[in-house]
This record gives sequence, structure tokens and C-alpha cells, in this order.
Amino acid sequence: MKLTVLGCYAATPRTFTNPTSQVLEIKNHLFLIDCGEGTQVQLRKYKVKFSRINHIFISHLHGDHFFGLPGLISTFRLLGRDKELHIYGPKGIKQAITLFLKLGDSWTNYPLIFHELESKEPELIFEDEKVTVRTVPLIHRVYTNGFLFQEKESPRTLDVEAARKFGVDRSQFNNIKNGADGVDKSGQKVPNKKLTLDPPEPKSYAFCSDTMYNETILPTIQNVTVLYHESTFLESEVHLCEKTKHSTAMQAAQIAQKANAKLLILGHYSTRYKSIRFFKEEAEAIFAPVDLADDGKVFDFGD
Amino acid sequence: MKLTVLGCYAATPRTFTNPTSQVLEIKNHLFLIDCGEGTQVQLRKYKVKFSRINHIFISHLHGDHFFGLPGLISTFRLLGRDKELHIYGPKGIKQAITLFLKLGDSWTNYPLIFHELESKEPELIFEDEKVTVRTVPLIHRVYTNGFLFQEKESPRTLDVEAARKFGVDRSQFNNIKNGADGVDKSGQKVPNKKLTLDPPEPKSYAFCSDTMYNETILPTIQNVTVLYHESTFLESEVHLCEKTKHSTAMQAAQIAQKANAKLLILGHYSTRYKSIRFFKEEAEAIFAPVDLADDGKVFDFGD
Repeated sequence: MKLTVLGCYAATPRTFTNPTSQVLEIKNHLFLIDCGEGTQVQLRKYKVKFSRINHIFISHLHGDHFFGLPGLISTFRLLGRDKELHIYGPKGIKQAITLFLKLGDSWTNYPLIFHELESKEPELIFEDEKVTVRTVPLIHRVYTNGFLFQEKESPRTLDVEAARKFGVDRSQFNNIKNGADGVDKSGQKVPNKKLTLDPPEPKSYAFCSDTMYNETILPTIQNVTVLYHESTFLESEVHLCEKTKHSTAMQAAQIAQKANAKLLILGHYSTRYKSIRFFKEEAEAIFAPVDLADDGKVFDFGD
Repeated sequence: MKLTVLGCYAATPRTFTNPTSQVLEIKNHLFLIDCGEGTQVQLRKYKVKFSRINHIFISHLHGDHFFGLPGLISTFRLLGRDKELHIYGPKGIKQAITLFLKLGDSWTNYPLIFHELESKEPELIFEDEKVTVRTVPLIHRVYTNGFLFQEKESPRTLDVEAARKFGVDRSQFNNIKNGADGVDKSGQKVPNKKLTLDPPEPKSYAFCSDTMYNETILPTIQNVTVLYHESTFLESEVHLCEKTKHSTAMQAAQIAQKANAKLLILGHYSTRYKSIRFFKEEAEAIFAPVDLADDGKVFDFGD
């Protein structure tokens, strides 16, 4: 699992900071999460292959999370894409994109499939053999979802050494891989668990931006491997959170702690602060480890 | 009159090239012409004051001329703008922008005034004491206008030295400035023309992008000071012009010649070519002088 942060600053694109967009690589998928203005340029800059993106998840329809999407969809067309592109986002996103394409008489020549979201409860929105994606309803000024990306548990793998030790014949290996118990030379049953190895722990990634402090997300993201949680403000500006429906770094840390996350990544910083390390310092008083998103930063969480 | 090119490359924003957007400074106005994705970042980079932009002209609703507009409008709001903003563009632009603002529940707190265009004939769309703006209907894949920005003729200025020479009394100066003839000491009439100086030649700027070769624009742009004309292709790719409704550098030069322009600026280059100097070379076989637009380039045409 690998995360490439294309942009993680609040409000408007600037010369050296970009609005929210991330690429999550998980089990051979390249999921694009949010698409602020300039995302397609960031994708080029960080050499993300456009053709590997088949699913785009949009948290909400504020400009700094969404205004790069019409351009990216158009560029896919110019690049000669023919594969399906799936867009997951709040109800209204289809009308908005469709209108822009219609006005430019620039319909895509690849299938563009919208999955419009409007539930206020967590829901499963994507599933294949190896991965699921669920919404994490957030509390913001407009209808907003975070997203929880989860690897499925892999099958147990054959422990060849153990099989030999127990004298289990090679002809049984396929059945054992599929979950069957083994039989040793003397005809005794050997339980499957003794002949197989635990699969690697499935990883998960929760993207929670934009949101005010919201404990109702805890059951959904409990024990998450990596939690990306917005921290637009520091506690010194906590009074702005109520009106803007954003969080402080400390609040993000409290959510990470209560969710029993393995790692907290902060992002969506207001540009009013001189250094983003203040966010880390504030969060670390509550929870560890904390890391800071930054434009172009890559987090590799291993296989 | 001064032109700042923010972006002048065709199709999609890339790491080092930007889609179409320009700022024309003319008689204390700062007119923004087209607004491809990333325009607001380019405005910051080249230190154009956001607060001086009150009029935005959009040629057509293809992404590379328009997808930066929703973000710029949102950023004006975040910057606390309260002045009117006027948007001139093809019919449909109001619906598109309004839908984006509605979906983000992000209405502007300044007046946003749309002037939707649908005429296929040139029309006067802006006028004040010093400047006029007219549409220049172009031929492209969707409804498209170029724009002709013209300074009005300034009043003649008093020639104090001539007045002294003719013995015209100071008490008559105001009337002479307003066009009256003078009277010398002997009571003889002195024609206004002899007591005043010619005003500077009014300047004009025609923005013609995107378009195929189109002689019907010639009466509108005749004798223009500066003609910006698209040259997406070189003559080696002239066969692409019919389908895409674009021009070659040679065709742009032919229009400049027939319009009796003082200067031709080329732009809207396809990124297929290794160097933009090929466009200049091709155009100069037909017309001179030719200059090349490039991102960040500033053209100063004097007062």
C-alpha cells in the first residue's frame, strides 16, 4: 500500500501549494482521491500513469477538492482513453460534469460511469476480490464523505517445511492451500492451521477530509492502519472550527487515538501558519506516531 | 497598453506549459481574457493584482480556455472581494458557473454579472469613456468569439507654445481644449487645429483564438495595432485544421497581412512541436513583424 500526496493545502491553489488530491496504490489499484484544480499537472509531475487510474473518489463538491475533475476527464479523452472511468461522489456531480462536457461539445469517447452518493450512513461502494471501499460520512458545510480503503484478508499460504515435517504428501498441497486438513503417512489428520502460514495483516487507509471533530466515524475506521485526518487549524484557532466545520491537529489526534489507528497523517492545512511542523507537535501531545502530508510526499506502507 | 501572457499552449495544462489566459492592461483596465485551468496560480506567479480584475472575457467553453474560471471566482470570494465582477462569454456560461457554486453551497458575496453572448455578428459588449470591446466571431468547433479591445481617440491637447506664438490669451485655453477656435490680439480667428496637438494614435488589440482561417473577421480587425492569432499547427499539419478548426502559423500571417496589423503575436501552440520558433519562421515568410507568445511573457506596447 502506497500513498502519493499530490496536494494537501486548504482553500485555493497557490504557486507552491496545491489543493487536495491523493493517489492510493492498494492491491494493484490506483485510486485517485479528490481532485482539486491542478491535479492533472501534479499527476504528470509525480509521474503517475494516467492510464492506471480507473476509479476517482470525490469527498465533496467544494472547489479545492473537485475543480480539477472536468479538466482531468477531458485530458483522459485527449489521451485516447477507451477504458471505463468510475467516479464516486456526492449527488450532483454527474449533472455538473455532464454540463461542462456538453457546453464544450466534448463528450468522452470512453465510458464515464457515475456512482452518486447521498447516504448519511457508511456504505460499501466498491468491492473486488482483494479490496473494499466504504464511505465514512463526515460533518462539513456540504454533504461530505471520507473513504475507507481496506485490503481483504489473503488466503493462508502453504508451509512446505511444516508439511514435510508432518510427512504430508505433495499431492495434498492444493487441497491444503484451499483450506483442507492434511493426512500424514500413518493416516493421522493434521489440522490445516499447522500446515499453513498466517497471511500478512490486511492494511487499511481512511481518508477523512473535510470534517469537524466527529466521533461517529469511530466504529467505521476502528483499528485502521493509516488514518489521514484533516487538520485545517491549530488549537489556537479552534474557535473557527464550528463555523467552517474543520478540525484542529489536536482533534485529529484524538480521533486517531480513539480509533486505535496505527499511524496518523495530517493534512488540509490552512495557509495562515508559517510551518506545518506545528501541526505535528500539537498532535503528538495526544497520539503517536504522527506524520505530515505534503505536496509530492510518498508514503510507502509496504506489501 | 500591456499584455501579460499567462498561458498560450493548446489542449491540456502540463508541468511547464499552461492553457490559454492573458491579461490586457489598457487605459487603467485590467481585462482577463480566457481562463484555462491553473490561471489563478499564474496570476499569483506573475503578481497580477486580483483586485484589479473586474472584467473577464471567455472566448469559448472548451476546457483549456474556461476550466480555471470556477476556481478563480471562488478564490475572489475567499479573498473578501465585494466589487462587481463581469463575465462575458458564450450562452451557457452562467448556468455552468452557477451550478458549481450551488453544489458547493459557495455563493459569491460580491455581485457576479454575466453577459452571455450568442450573436454571430460582431457586437459592442463593453464601452466606457476610454475603451470599447467588441466581439470578433470566429469559426471553431463550438460557438467562439475573439475580442477586439480599442482605445478611444483622446482629445487634442493644448499646444501652449503655439498659443503664445499666435498671441492667444490664457483665458481661452479651456475652451480651446474643448475644441473651440482661438482669437488673437488683433481679433483674428485662429483655428483650433493650429492651437492643439494631435492626440496619440489610439491602440487596439485583437485576440483571435481558437479559429480556423477566417477572412470574415478582416473588416472588424482592420488596421489593428496588435493581432494575437492562434497558430495551433504548422503548414506540415495543415490537414488537421479542417477537422479541429484551428489555424497554421502561415494562415495567421495571412490574416495579419490582410488586416494590415502592425504586429502579429502567435500562440495556442500544439505541444507536438519541439520548438515554438518554427511558428515564427513560418509566419515571417508572409508577414512582419511577428512575435511569439509564451507563458509569463509581457508585451509592452507603450502609453
